[in-house]
Amino acid sequence: MQNNEKENFTPRRLKITDNKKGFIELLQQLSICDSISENKFEERFREIDSLGDDHVICVIEDEISGKIVATGSVFIEKKFLRNCGKVGHIEDVVVDSSVRGKQLGKKVIDFLTDHARAVGCYKVILDCSVENRVFYEKCGFKEKEIQMAMYFV
Amino acid sequence: MQNNEKENFTPRRLKITDNKKGFIELLQQLSICDSISENKFEERFREIDSLGDDHVICVIEDEISGKIVATGSVFIEKKFLRNCGKVGHIEDVVVDSSVRGKQLGKKVIDFLTDHARAVGCYKVILDCSVENRVFYEKCGFKEKEIQMAMYFV
Repeated sequence: MQNNEKENFTPRRLKITDNKKGFIELLQQLSICDSISENKFEERFREIDSLGDDHVICVIEDEISGKIVATGSVFIEKKFLRNCGKVGHIEDVVVDSSVRGKQLGKKVIDFLTDHARAVGCYKVILDCSVENRVFYEKCGFKEKEIQMAMYFV
Repeated sequence: MQNNEKENFTPRRLKITDNKKGFIELLQQLSICDSISENKFEERFREIDSLGDDHVICVIEDEISGKIVATGSVFIEKKFLRNCGKVGHIEDVVVDSSVRGKQLGKKVIDFLTDHARAVGCYKVILDCSVENRVFYEKCGFKEKEIQMAMYFV
């Protein structure tokens, strides 16, 4: 039973077919996100996919229900700083409220940080609320600076 | 005299020839950055340039000295969230210590935020030290979350 559970929650890259597996509904637990038409989803998927290893979206599918239950993304910024270094930016991490407590958030973060390390980043960064700081500390992150935002809409 | 000063500090996009105008030396005021060979500079320039409007580096050249005296970059992240929204990420903002107090930092930030707005971002974000918060508030930003980082090197 424990083995089965492990098999059911393996992180992998987003596929174009995940639109039908509740991927957008999962994002709606995180922030504003209307339903997206199939065309719009596929167009955005291809834009991101064209960046290859420079923009990776990780998902975890519950193989029993066939639903996407966790996700997070990382994109790779290429700099001149740090001797033409690269930085991984983690965004849009969310775990379905029905499966919290199974360490799926940590699995997603590990997948994304492993990817950033593998492509040669010297660091990976993310912004989070004060409430989520302890979770990211457990994942190996340290608090660094403050995030500033300007909204256009 | 005042008109001349205005003409001397106009933000524009980084050009491949700016390597010879002290661009890397300016970045060294911000963080670790060794000298970069001409080949390495041109390779990284072309990688970033290939992203077109999705990764823009702004510079201000002092037309009298011919030196780059201010810079900042913005790259555009494409999301599924917010109805396939886009977010501008501002990075690597620095003003030469010899020309501080001339509002060049604000000119760079305005250039980058105008770009993010023009390409359809719903927000633009950046991370900064607590000491720089007031500057970014004057530019129209508000403090939002905390930044977490994991260093690989």
